Amino acid sequence: MSRPPGRKQENHKISRELFVLTYGALVAQLCKDYEKDEDVNTCLDRMGYGIGVRLIDDFLARSAVKKCRSYSETTDMIAQVAFKMYLGVTPSVSCSSAAGNEFSLILDKNPLVDFVEELPAERSSLCYCNLLCGVIRGALEMVHLAAEVTFLQDRLKGDAVTEIGITFLRKAEDRKHKRN
Amino acid sequence: MSRPPGRKQENHKISRELFVLTYGALVAQLCKDYEKDEDVNTCLDRMGYGIGVRLIDDFLARSAVKKCRSYSETTDMIAQVAFKMYLGVTPSVSCSSAAGNEFSLILDKNPLVDFVEELPAERSSLCYCNLLCGVIRGALEMVHLAAEVTFLQDRLKGDAVTEIGITFLRKAEDRKHKRN
Repeated sequence: MSRPPGRKQENHKISRELFVLTYGALVAQLCKDYEKDEDVNTCLDRMGYGIGVRLIDDFLARSAVKKCRSYSETTDMIAQVAFKMYLGVTPSVSCSSAAGNEFSLILDKNPLVDFVEELPAERSSLCYCNLLCGVIRGALEMVHLAAEVTFLQDRLKGDAVTEIGITFLRKAEDRKHKRN
Repeated sequence: MSRPPGRKQENHKISRELFVLTYGALVAQLCKDYEKDEDVNTCLDRMGYGIGVRLIDDFLARSAVKKCRSYSETTDMIAQVAFKMYLGVTPSVSCSSAAGNEFSLILDKNPLVDFVEELPAERSSLCYCNLLCGVIRGALEMVHLAAEVTFLQDRLKGDAVTEIGITFLRKAEDRKHKRN
């Protein structure tokens, strides 16, 4: 990032509504560009990835968090610090695997869909907020954590909550180590 | 808008960075979609218009501002209340016509370009933040004020400041009255 060090501390807070509506315009544009929902989802994920890769520096600088020592701690950090900071909400976290590498972020309310009532019938496979998955994936990768991030439930699709699944993948070094 | 009345007051504030990067992704997508800068500019303005038309209700509800009695008061409201609320900055205002219907919003710092260093050479006619013009135009139209809103200066193009020009157009009734 190109921020000069020592820049005066600024007010980083803005109102959510402009963001939510701008995000809606982005999704609408991609729906014009791509016929298949899967292509829109992929594109949103890819865009989000690019954002996450850049946002992580901002996050680390502003949150001043320490290095996490477990996947569980990392997920809590995403939920309690990152979501709070960037979206003004705090999802609850659940661990969904005995192996301890699968977690869910559960949002009772998804701020990104404030102005969305429901998905159009012909867009039933659209993951409207897939950008978020990409952001998380990109940011994690920059701290050397490979992960798969996908929507498991979505209130826009009639589910009771919105649930983002994070599966931390075994590290490349671990795999290499195992092979040797 | 579909908000139920009496909804619990929520924290509407979010961090600007995610918005700024998402906006960047939107502009990048439009640059992929359209070869000509003018087409990207038009599209951003049109998207912004749609956003402004929806955002105005949110603005009126949350700002609780009274009806403005002059173009000058309206422009001050945009600068001091709306920009502050939605982007966390307050542009200065100048009136640039004797007729009293042309104003400029002058931004020393444009929060939307935080992560943008400069426009690519082949995109020299791009009005990167043209969405904002559309938002202002759309919102004004919803309070029965027709206006032309364009970028007059842009720091991204090497200008000293970023300047958004607002020209309030004579009202249809005025024109009709004059003709009769």
